[in-house]
Amino acid sequence: MTRTVYVNGEYLPETEAKVSIFDRAFLMADGVYEVTSVLGGKLIDFDGHLARLERSLTELDMPKPKAFDELLEIHRKLVELNGIDEGMVYLQVTRGAPGDRDFAFPDPETCEATLVLFTQNKPGLAANPVAKTGIKVISIEDIRWGRRDIKTVQLLYPSMGKMMAKKAGCDDAWLVEDGFVTEGTSNNAYIVKDGTIITRNLGTDILHGITRAAVLRFAREAQMKVEERPFTIAEAQGADEAFYTSASAFVMPVVEIDGESIGTGKPGDVATRLREIYLEESRKAGI
Amino acid sequence: MTRTVYVNGEYLPETEAKVSIFDRAFLMADGVYEVTSVLGGKLIDFDGHLARLERSLTELDMPKPKAFDELLEIHRKLVELNGIDEGMVYLQVTRGAPGDRDFAFPDPETCEATLVLFTQNKPGLAANPVAKTGIKVISIEDIRWGRRDIKTVQLLYPSMGKMMAKKAGCDDAWLVEDGFVTEGTSNNAYIVKDGTIITRNLGTDILHGITRAAVLRFAREAQMKVEERPFTIAEAQGADEAFYTSASAFVMPVVEIDGESIGTGKPGDVATRLREIYLEESRKAGI
Repeated sequence: MTRTVYVNGEYLPETEAKVSIFDRAFLMADGVYEVTSVLGGKLIDFDGHLARLERSLTELDMPKPKAFDELLEIHRKLVELNGIDEGMVYLQVTRGAPGDRDFAFPDPETCEATLVLFTQNKPGLAANPVAKTGIKVISIEDIRWGRRDIKTVQLLYPSMGKMMAKKAGCDDAWLVEDGFVTEGTSNNAYIVKDGTIITRNLGTDILHGITRAAVLRFAREAQMKVEERPFTIAEAQGADEAFYTSASAFVMPVVEIDGESIGTGKPGDVATRLREIYLEESRKAGI
Repeated sequence: MTRTVYVNGEYLPETEAKVSIFDRAFLMADGVYEVTSVLGGKLIDFDGHLARLERSLTELDMPKPKAFDELLEIHRKLVELNGIDEGMVYLQVTRGAPGDRDFAFPDPETCEATLVLFTQNKPGLAANPVAKTGIKVISIEDIRWGRRDIKTVQLLYPSMGKMMAKKAGCDDAWLVEDGFVTEGTSNNAYIVKDGTIITRNLGTDILHGITRAAVLRFAREAQMKVEERPFTIAEAQGADEAFYTSASAFVMPVVEIDGESIGTGKPGDVATRLREIYLEESRKAGI
């Protein structure tokens, strides 16, 4: 089935969905994005993603696209048109396509922001069998730019990191800066030691994960102890459990880091329980 | 006049020049570029730009676009079609537009690289009056990713830097990392002290400027002393001269850094002489 996608006010077949070569995201990575998951045809954590999108736009002095107030409606229409039960909706805003290439920002009065949305159909996303076995990660140096709290499309290095992991026979890479894990290539990283969940504190060095915020809230509500602080790869290798969170993988157990098994080498109880709680609560709150 | 641009084998009016929303440069900044200047209708340092493009592609495991061997011909045709006497030709290669968004690189067997080129007409580029008065820069922290030797389209921070400079009433920003100047937002940075030209040594932290290489060669041929090493903003403020080089500005005097006048506050003799030599030699060698 050909997907229907959204580009600047139009619903189009994916094969006809195009942007100008002068679009700022194409020429200068001047764009921000969000990925909202869909479960049972409902949007998960939509308000959180929208709030983060607004923050990204504000941090970059980027104008809001014309249809900003209609984003919920556009998400819902795409989910419906493409018959998504489980999957994701991807959204990207760019500073638009001025008439020419220039490092200076275009004038928002004359250059409208670009708005693109598309769905990704992932039947079985919640029941992903990988969550039963866990994934393997390698560690690589974190050489990304300094404002990882802004969700920009500057994803070349995370993309390279995924390829390095693949070549090493693993699933993902955890990024390390000044000796401490920052996060995964497209997710937040956690370890569990003696019942305490440890994850890096928020700052400009990591993404402020929407799923992270929800999972930590659920963990605290379930009386689990949470410590927000940096940890090293060695500490992670000596932990009882490891996992990551992201909008599209929810809570995903990590069972090996740089060739060392974590805990029993199988998904741990805390990660498994948090995944269950997150999925259950998210389904209830989906809109 | 509507420009004619090149997109994947086709010569098109600029208003019809589009790429898929799934293009890797649009979604993930997975693209590299080059800018070649044109003087008297001839391409300047074309071989150098092509060699650097090949290096960028190799460093990123990015496939060559189908028309790679025809790049000189495409450049020349665009210059002719658009009647460019002085200006630039911009070229961008991306990993192409796979059918969907994925962090993993698409298979180069099934996903062809995207190739886009367009001209920018700049009559009077060589006689730019700004070179007679010089420009003012501010210094800002360098928070870009770690592989600045690869000429990727991850230009959001350089673009933000230009805007910070504009807001401060200046023309450009010099980036500072660990106390030392790396380079300008889109150019290499130099100072002159007691007749010695000082510019940061090559590494992964700066772009390997094609104009930089040519200018340093001409300087050495003219018996000028060149030192390739990092320098601080304080050292630059105490220098006799400052300037930058880039493909589109050639050699550009810098007369103020963070509000401090450099030397006499006017373009220095070394920068002025190097600009003359560069323009003269480049015109002779243009193809």
